[in-house]
Amino acid sequence: MLKNHLQSKRKLIDSKIELYLSKLEYPNVIAEGMRYSVLNGGKRLRPILLLMILDLYEKDLELGLPSAVAIELIHSYSLVHDDLPALDNDDYRRGKLTTHKKFGEAEAILIGDALLTHSFSLIVDETKNVEAEKLLKIIGMISRYAGINGMIGGQMVDIESEKKKVSLETLEYIHANKTGKLLKLPVEIGAIISDASKDEYEALEKYAELIGLAFQIKDDILDIEGEFEKIGKPIGSDLELEKTTYPSIFGLEKSKDILKEVIEKAKNSLELFPSEKVLIFKELADYIAFREN
Amino acid sequence: MLKNHLQSKRKLIDSKIELYLSKLEYPNVIAEGMRYSVLNGGKRLRPILLLMILDLYEKDLELGLPSAVAIELIHSYSLVHDDLPALDNDDYRRGKLTTHKKFGEAEAILIGDALLTHSFSLIVDETKNVEAEKLLKIIGMISRYAGINGMIGGQMVDIESEKKKVSLETLEYIHANKTGKLLKLPVEIGAIISDASKDEYEALEKYAELIGLAFQIKDDILDIEGEFEKIGKPIGSDLELEKTTYPSIFGLEKSKDILKEVIEKAKNSLELFPSEKVLIFKELADYIAFREN
Repeated sequence: MLKNHLQSKRKLIDSKIELYLSKLEYPNVIAEGMRYSVLNGGKRLRPILLLMILDLYEKDLELGLPSAVAIELIHSYSLVHDDLPALDNDDYRRGKLTTHKKFGEAEAILIGDALLTHSFSLIVDETKNVEAEKLLKIIGMISRYAGINGMIGGQMVDIESEKKKVSLETLEYIHANKTGKLLKLPVEIGAIISDASKDEYEALEKYAELIGLAFQIKDDILDIEGEFEKIGKPIGSDLELEKTTYPSIFGLEKSKDILKEVIEKAKNSLELFPSEKVLIFKELADYIAFREN
Repeated sequence: MLKNHLQSKRKLIDSKIELYLSKLEYPNVIAEGMRYSVLNGGKRLRPILLLMILDLYEKDLELGLPSAVAIELIHSYSLVHDDLPALDNDDYRRGKLTTHKKFGEAEAILIGDALLTHSFSLIVDETKNVEAEKLLKIIGMISRYAGINGMIGGQMVDIESEKKKVSLETLEYIHANKTGKLLKLPVEIGAIISDASKDEYEALEKYAELIGLAFQIKDDILDIEGEFEKIGKPIGSDLELEKTTYPSIFGLEKSKDILKEVIEKAKNSLELFPSEKVLIFKELADYIAFREN
């Protein structure tokens, strides 16, 4: 059930990304580079989460598709910039050349900038039938969660933490911000569009935080146990960079136990919704914990 | 008159930039880097233009200050990224170390990203008493003018045009987009906030386009005739990069004639306003043509 669900949602999202980005033409290297960086076979977990919330409230998915794609553009830009020589210096992502390897370094910096910038006009220009007040709230939230007090902050502290031991508190800050905020974002935006009650909003927020944490612990585990063919990037890069991770603090087995606990909590966090309506959210939590890439 | 006007407006804008950015703390290198990159003694031409429009319509400046500062953050981020080794590779700007020289290259990429991202939440969080519909329109315009079909597009084509002769058409595209769009932006936003009529809007837009073009022609001329001490960067970099410029196409003297013509047109473009109200706009046009930095 989950697999089909994810596949059909992913198809819908990919078709929207293609549609929105097909409108961009000149300069060709930026337009092509934006499409190359986003249309990369990604899992689309973030936009899917937004659509799952709209489904939960039986809302028209069109209300949230521009925001969902905008978040994916921001996710993509962050990968383009993270892969740059001055940052992670990665040549491959998902088995394809990274954007700077394909288009050049100056180009990749500008392609990333263009993806981030475009995400905001996409929301303004393509969203129909959502009140201006709500859209403003969404734009403010995207900007906060993706900025210094969110994703960029997490990324910076992550870089600062290479080659040294950091505290669990710092590791939690990195996880909550570098990956966590961009996973909470679609859930909260979905809740805003759907007029979730305060209790529902908080439950959904909790769920998003927990699967975000699980996602990151799983990433740390995959960096030790994963297979290159499946995750599409070299194994052991955390070890090489002497990064503090869940396994480096707690050991591999204890990290797996923590992951299980977090997933259980996530699955239990949506009890105030009818259980048949949130089955898919529980399946998604399991998928995050047991995925191979 | 103009000098005092610019000085008092600049002071107001700088105090707002300091206020808004003082709210950012962690990670310290990003917060410090954002302040360093923006509080650099810039002319604040873009935010001043926005405030001049509000003055013209006798509107409260507070309505536009968050947008004015947001545009300045975007201008600053573009300079931070342009200065990077992969792009212009500049060590100094206004006689101070560029952001990557001061904070490191990875840091400068993230500091630029953070400035761009933060500009949007600034508008949403700090603007008071402007209707949501108008703010959305402003955000959409900022995102379009700063993105692939604006500043970033112009920057990309500018890079592509180094070390080769390009047509006047391409040069005009570069000017209209790389510098032009971010000068039109504050004028149009001011007009939106002030409920300018269609005719007024078009006249203001025309004025902004013309001073944007004049600004760029003057920049090209200063790169030949300027003094390092005044412009704070090396002279002759266009020549070194074999860039196509107004002087390289038309020669220096003809370029100066064109500049004069453009300035005259700019000064005549606001005839539908009472002449005493637009005196300052005419003075600004002259200032742009005769500035030494």
